[in-house]
Amino acid sequence: MLLAMLWTLALLPLVLTAPFGGHADGKGPEEIIAAERSALDRWGNGDPQGFLEIYAPDVTYFDPFGERRVDGLSAMKALLAPMAGKIKVDRYDMLNPKVQRHGDVAVLTYNLVDYSKQADGSEKAIMRWNSTAVFRRIDGKWRTIHSHWSFVKPEVKQATLQ
Amino acid sequence: MLLAMLWTLALLPLVLTAPFGGHADGKGPEEIIAAERSALDRWGNGDPQGFLEIYAPDVTYFDPFGERRVDGLSAMKALLAPMAGKIKVDRYDMLNPKVQRHGDVAVLTYNLVDYSKQADGSEKAIMRWNSTAVFRRIDGKWRTIHSHWSFVKPEVKQATLQ
Repeated sequence: MLLAMLWTLALLPLVLTAPFGGHADGKGPEEIIAAERSALDRWGNGDPQGFLEIYAPDVTYFDPFGERRVDGLSAMKALLAPMAGKIKVDRYDMLNPKVQRHGDVAVLTYNLVDYSKQADGSEKAIMRWNSTAVFRRIDGKWRTIHSHWSFVKPEVKQATLQ
Repeated sequence: MLLAMLWTLALLPLVLTAPFGGHADGKGPEEIIAAERSALDRWGNGDPQGFLEIYAPDVTYFDPFGERRVDGLSAMKALLAPMAGKIKVDRYDMLNPKVQRHGDVAVLTYNLVDYSKQADGSEKAIMRWNSTAVFRRIDGKWRTIHSHWSFVKPEVKQATLQ
């Protein structure tokens, strides 16, 4: 009986990583989420280099502020570099991250809530995002080949839709 | 000289398909765009089955109307099936479609403009979208494993952002 319990405990780490898929190389999803979190951490401190460093040369990108897709790392540098020092996110929640990995390509999706500290010390949710980041393993490193940021349920002025 | 011109003409189809990448199997990007267009055509006529038929069982999905990511084909059927007959897009433009293909996974991105015919016979742009569709080739067919729809530059009520 005790032996059976020990076996169950021994299997627990396998069970816990199962939602990421049963790939032989189980490190992929955790590495990908860690890479994204590292970029988000730096972004929240006003440093866009975290994202720029993991973008692949042929990255494509959508956000709610552009008229059309942005193509390529040079264009992304031009877009994000001027935002250095202008962003402050005190804390974020990465909700329900999911990695759909197939070989050297992996799709990371999550909802993100950004929080800001108020003058009275309380926290306030300031932004809610849908986030897609498609990664490709290039020379052993996961690089973002596509990123799509959008607002969760934006309350759009009617004029926008007509 | 004439021979040179004929050679140039013979190479033209190769040049025209070059932006999709130099894969040995050049059909992938065209097939993927055609699959998406077919689904869009049916959607514009009030038929959500076009999308539902190309979604993979493990499809993940974001649009501007949900609180969080939608996971799996069953959930997508529950979301889209009730919209049958309630959508009418008279015409659309798929702007600047791009396919980033790596083996059996391909990322299709494009901007979409939906048009509606007005009472006076003129056309009006009613919606502008950013669209990401990640495809995976399963049993020789391209299936959508992730889709992300968002509004282009939504004019958001300020309250949404605070």
